[in-house]
Amino acid sequence: MSKLNETHDPARMSWVESANVSGGDFPIQNLPFCVFSAGDANSRIGVAIGDHVFDLTTASATGLLPADVQDAFDASRPASLNALMDKDPKVLSALRLRLSNLLLKGNDEAAKHAGKLLFAQKEVRFQLPASIGGFTDFFTSLYHTERMGKVTRPDNAVPLNFRYLPIAYNSRASSVRISGEEVRRPKGQRQNPDETISFEPTGSLDYELELGAFIGQGNELGEPIPIGSAADHVFGYCLLNDWSVRDQQRWEAFPLGPFLAKTLSTTISPFIVTPEALAPFRTPASTRPEGDPAPLPYLHSDQDQREGGLDLIMEAYIQSDAMRKRGDEAMRITRTNFKDMYWTVAQMVAHHASNGCNFRTGDLIASGTTSGPTDESRACLAEIAVGGGPIELPGGEKRTWLEDGDTVVFRAKAEKPGAVSIGFGECVGRILPAHP
Amino acid sequence: MSKLNETHDPARMSWVESANVSGGDFPIQNLPFCVFSAGDANSRIGVAIGDHVFDLTTASATGLLPADVQDAFDASRPASLNALMDKDPKVLSALRLRLSNLLLKGNDEAAKHAGKLLFAQKEVRFQLPASIGGFTDFFTSLYHTERMGKVTRPDNAVPLNFRYLPIAYNSRASSVRISGEEVRRPKGQRQNPDETISFEPTGSLDYELELGAFIGQGNELGEPIPIGSAADHVFGYCLLNDWSVRDQQRWEAFPLGPFLAKTLSTTISPFIVTPEALAPFRTPASTRPEGDPAPLPYLHSDQDQREGGLDLIMEAYIQSDAMRKRGDEAMRITRTNFKDMYWTVAQMVAHHASNGCNFRTGDLIASGTTSGPTDESRACLAEIAVGGGPIELPGGEKRTWLEDGDTVVFRAKAEKPGAVSIGFGECVGRILPAHP
Repeated sequence: MSKLNETHDPARMSWVESANVSGGDFPIQNLPFCVFSAGDANSRIGVAIGDHVFDLTTASATGLLPADVQDAFDASRPASLNALMDKDPKVLSALRLRLSNLLLKGNDEAAKHAGKLLFAQKEVRFQLPASIGGFTDFFTSLYHTERMGKVTRPDNAVPLNFRYLPIAYNSRASSVRISGEEVRRPKGQRQNPDETISFEPTGSLDYELELGAFIGQGNELGEPIPIGSAADHVFGYCLLNDWSVRDQQRWEAFPLGPFLAKTLSTTISPFIVTPEALAPFRTPASTRPEGDPAPLPYLHSDQDQREGGLDLIMEAYIQSDAMRKRGDEAMRITRTNFKDMYWTVAQMVAHHASNGCNFRTGDLIASGTTSGPTDESRACLAEIAVGGGPIELPGGEKRTWLEDGDTVVFRAKAEKPGAVSIGFGECVGRILPAHP
Repeated sequence: MSKLNETHDPARMSWVESANVSGGDFPIQNLPFCVFSAGDANSRIGVAIGDHVFDLTTASATGLLPADVQDAFDASRPASLNALMDKDPKVLSALRLRLSNLLLKGNDEAAKHAGKLLFAQKEVRFQLPASIGGFTDFFTSLYHTERMGKVTRPDNAVPLNFRYLPIAYNSRASSVRISGEEVRRPKGQRQNPDETISFEPTGSLDYELELGAFIGQGNELGEPIPIGSAADHVFGYCLLNDWSVRDQQRWEAFPLGPFLAKTLSTTISPFIVTPEALAPFRTPASTRPEGDPAPLPYLHSDQDQREGGLDLIMEAYIQSDAMRKRGDEAMRITRTNFKDMYWTVAQMVAHHASNGCNFRTGDLIASGTTSGPTDESRACLAEIAVGGGPIELPGGEKRTWLEDGDTVVFRAKAEKPGAVSIGFGECVGRILPAHP
């Protein structure tokens, strides 16, 4: 795991003034990577700083970046983070220090080129940050598992295997999309209350608030990743909305798991927050309930138990079409914390590779729904509707499931006394009506 | 579906004499695509003809191929079939006719360059034919479902949804490998008979004999593929061994489906047999048992019901290390026919895209275990061991599951009176011992 160093110093300020506003998502201590385009120009790699993006592709061409990362910013091909993700974590750490110094108040090396290096975030288009070869979704919240299980399998709410391994399934990489792209309500098969089977637009579209993690360096097929080095394979984190179709999921998922209920689209936030930026917010792995088994040796390391958790507040908001038209702010419907997850990200990585299955650079893994113990931490509508009935929105609207025109927004922030808080930006998606 | 034309004419012979041997896999009526390399040269695209490969990359550079496919054979990048797969089926049909004519006995256009265009298959290395973005495995044999279900869920052997939709799960594209690569016995979690949980090398490694299908042209996210055009999205077929770990599968698969039990490796044969080559062997979709529901409208077309089936004999062979050392031939343990599958490939494609999930060119789908009604058609050891105990091999060895050093070989052939038979080549994998 990353050690604290000068890039974490709360006293550091940037010459990009908007980065110095207290409580903002993108202070100089964050520096998350993204891929963006502006105007008609080719897409480029950047880091978010304040309300701007600092253009690394151009900075590299200007000679401002270390020689050992210049190939990752080759402007002659469509921009993606894959080549950067494939670098040794030490090289990435050195790049972070260089970027932090380039953006440091008082250093004019980059500041004097600000006119060509700095873009307002609201004036650029963000793109998928990487070519994603594989997308795996985990199931790592005991609370989500319990609440969902009470409905679908009351005699076996938390399956025995949940406490032994981070359950996961392969999901669909082709339908991962960047924040802001709209989501078409899908049609699908379902079993109706009268037991007839129909194929029609879903009536139970849901969000799932998840943390995504991009894999940096991969492993060879047949060569597992030990738990002790698993965290080194994570390039960075994003927010992820695992849009889910509950009626279809119930009908299709036995015995081979959810399929089309999860492949309509998956939305991720554009900014990839590095493990190093999050180093001040590591926590011990969550305490297991009394009587639960200890992790098997291949899923256990003292260091991971000590600092494999992550104190990250994650929130979901909803804004209906009517709210949007009236100018009502989106309403918060979830507030949870990633530190309550049963399994750590390192455990997910080590388990995923424990049979020798190979990760490739740019692969995406997701945490599963990040629900915590409290009512406000329920991180999908299926849990909320099961526990307490419909949500009441401003203006008298109610929601059991998402309706056409609804926008779902995720945000996340790591904060603690003595550290500068680190934000994730937004993960946004709006529901379009089904095709006729 | 493809119409019969002159490329199917049984009277056509090739100037590559080994293609004219009766009953061979690769007559001039087949022409399956592959990617291969010879010596130190870059990889190239080819078609199998007799016991040779005809080099399309060089043929294209020599000006022998149509102008509208030349970009697909660009020798400046690593060879893969993706660009060719993305062509309109009409363009591919014209290419097939051109290739058939180039290889036709009496035509010396290509024959006069045979020295640089023709390679003996035994002297080349085959590679993965495409960059595979997604790999989806279906569950399309009623007989496999029944036999497996009787063991794991005797009260519900065939789940109700099986008869309404082609059940599937996303599997792992990163671990798909070409025939001939060895397969490392994986470690994994399992629940032992005494209910303890352990992590160790699997004791129940299995093969699954499947048909793979590569997707040609894809679809946009949000835009389903109608059943009427679904078959046009299939570029071609191969054999696929979905290596499976039964002890781990039993323990991990509830509630999100099989995961690591399927991701250790998946082996495919190198030759992609086109739908046009298989046109003479189309059959009606299999007859559903009395009382089963008709396919819902989005899974039904008259043409697919009439010719969506495929009369293809598929076989699995096993050769233990001891057999290999003694020089014993591999022993056949499965002989099944794809025409007995409950769902057609077009139905799989249409269902996969029915929620708007996008296929990308080069995506791979697989049929699931292709077991038929008879004992000899059981297409994995799990079915064989359940029904009749261990297999007896020559020399007195027995097999319930695969052992280290075992080689599994798949073959397939389409044949019928009046047509030249079409073979698939081999899909081969050998088991290596687990890491200590």
